[in-house]
Amino acid sequence: MTTDFAPTDPGFAERVRRSFARQPMMATIGAELLRVAPGAVDIALAKAPHILQQHGFVHAGVLATLADTACGFAALTLMPASAGVLTVEFKINLMAPAAAERLVAHGRVVRAGRTLLVTEARIAPEDAPDRPVALLTATMMTIEGRDGIVD
Amino acid sequence: MTTDFAPTDPGFAERVRRSFARQPMMATIGAELLRVAPGAVDIALAKAPHILQQHGFVHAGVLATLADTACGFAALTLMPASAGVLTVEFKINLMAPAAAERLVAHGRVVRAGRTLLVTEARIAPEDAPDRPVALLTATMMTIEGRDGIVD
Amino acid sequence: MTTDFAPTDPGFAERVRRSFARQPMMATIGAELLRVAPGAVDIALAKAPHILQQHGFVHAGVLATLADTACGFAALTLMPASAGVLTVEFKINLMAPAAAERLVAHGRVVRAGRTLLVTEARIAPEDAPDRPVALLTATMMTIEGRDGIVD
Amino acid sequence: MTTDFAPTDPGFAERVRRSFARQPMMATIGAELLRVAPGAVDIALAKAPHILQQHGFVHAGVLATLADTACGFAALTLMPASAGVLTVEFKINLMAPAAAERLVAHGRVVRAGRTLLVTEARIAPEDAPDRPVALLTATMMTIEGRDGIVD
Repeated sequence: MTTDFAPTDPGFAERVRRSFARQPMMATIGAELLRVAPGAVDIALAKAPHILQQHGFVHAGVLATLADTACGFAALTLMPASAGVLTVEFKINLMAPAAAERLVAHGRVVRAGRTLLVTEARIAPEDAPDRPVALLTATMMTIEGRDGIVD
Repeated sequence: MTTDFAPTDPGFAERVRRSFARQPMMATIGAELLRVAPGAVDIALAKAPHILQQHGFVHAGVLATLADTACGFAALTLMPASAGVLTVEFKINLMAPAAAERLVAHGRVVRAGRTLLVTEARIAPEDAPDRPVALLTATMMTIEGRDGIVD
Repeated sequence: MTTDFAPTDPGFAERVRRSFARQPMMATIGAELLRVAPGAVDIALAKAPHILQQHGFVHAGVLATLADTACGFAALTLMPASAGVLTVEFKINLMAPAAAERLVAHGRVVRAGRTLLVTEARIAPEDAPDRPVALLTATMMTIEGRDGIVD
Repeated sequence: MTTDFAPTDPGFAERVRRSFARQPMMATIGAELLRVAPGAVDIALAKAPHILQQHGFVHAGVLATLADTACGFAALTLMPASAGVLTVEFKINLMAPAAAERLVAHGRVVRAGRTLLVTEARIAPEDAPDRPVALLTATMMTIEGRDGIVD
């Protein structure tokens, strides 16, 4: 995998942290921003009653929320300071029930084009990174010059 | 599209309503179960501050949660009373920012196999059903005889 | 579904037919262009020995080729005369083995944005359109001003 | 990524090679089986006129055929000798036009369940493995006891 990405905005890490803090949904599910590096963002989530589905596992949609956000911010680390990021699409494969007490989504840029960036995230128990429970791939879009879409 | 599905469990509607009520995540995002029919489930969502992303739109992950749930329950309407439903995978295309005050996810079974069911959901503003903002396709799995996976 | 699309290029049908004829891969698999309408393109395929996989069914990749092409051309019907179309991504669900003698992929635009168009195709036996064997959703991109990408 | 998979069929490599040889579609596009290891299969493809789309690039459907096959056989390496493999679904992101003279699809199992296996493939130019042009994720199904589905 290509992993040597060069950010164009030197303040990329602070910018991701600020934008993460402005996402009410992250507080709603209890997500915690861990690591921010060029093309890579990790986000943690603790299992909690209010984010479960009917069998007692973390809801597939919450896993998608977590992984989509990790991918979106991984893409944002490589975007110009004037741009915002929007998700075009993503697919998630749920590989095992999410029963761990704490999960981490590892978002990575796979290839960065001018307008579109392809990203991938794996979600695994924090204490078992080799046993992913979900795999997500996403297309992220660089948005410039549209009101309200700045990160 | 095939739309004449015959449920094997005559109590399918009550069962979906009960299972929906046991999903804490549905209460967390404020989702409301509207319609339950064989192979078809509609779920509504009101825009609210705690489910937004950083630009003020409903978070892509919330849209995914809504559409995934509509699809899962659409699949459940066709499953035997002894079975539970799990999401295998889904893909969502975000076609326009979700800015409407009230959205509805229309989950539909496209084809029902013995073990796997393919489903689709469109999310549109409640007052503009012809202007979908998201399109999701999902594979649902019939689970039988596994502890804790009953709906 | 939104189905009232207005083409910007009045010569859209002739243009799709010309571009289809310039695709060697369509001749390789034996595909036949049936219908071209605004936002809608149908392509047929006859089962033949050289496009099968190891169990005697049409290869999943051939189904993907067929449906992706139907979607790409459905998108092209709505693009300006100066533009070309490229596939950004697609997902395909294989719902039943493709054993019919003749299949048709029905490509449809679901929502058309300025740069990106979301499309969907169902593949069904020609004599059983209500029994789809595959479902594909795709993102298509309008390409302008890039050498060699004109349709 | 989990990469220490233990095959249950000691003859897995020979079996993959035999099944590959029985796929007419692989000969049609000119694919060549390179490497077979537990949970990993690589397949090469030379650019040729009959597999191109209208702009002179390898058709997206051909890339999907290549990557889907690499994933299916990567999954097959871990299946019992009595089983066959079928593709449930896949998504492919096309990240750059496929213009290289020779491409390789690297299929890998990400997680192997009893019935379903999640796989991933990257396609890159043979001489630039760090510059992937396509990324595919797929769900593969273990089929047992169904006539005609043996590999």
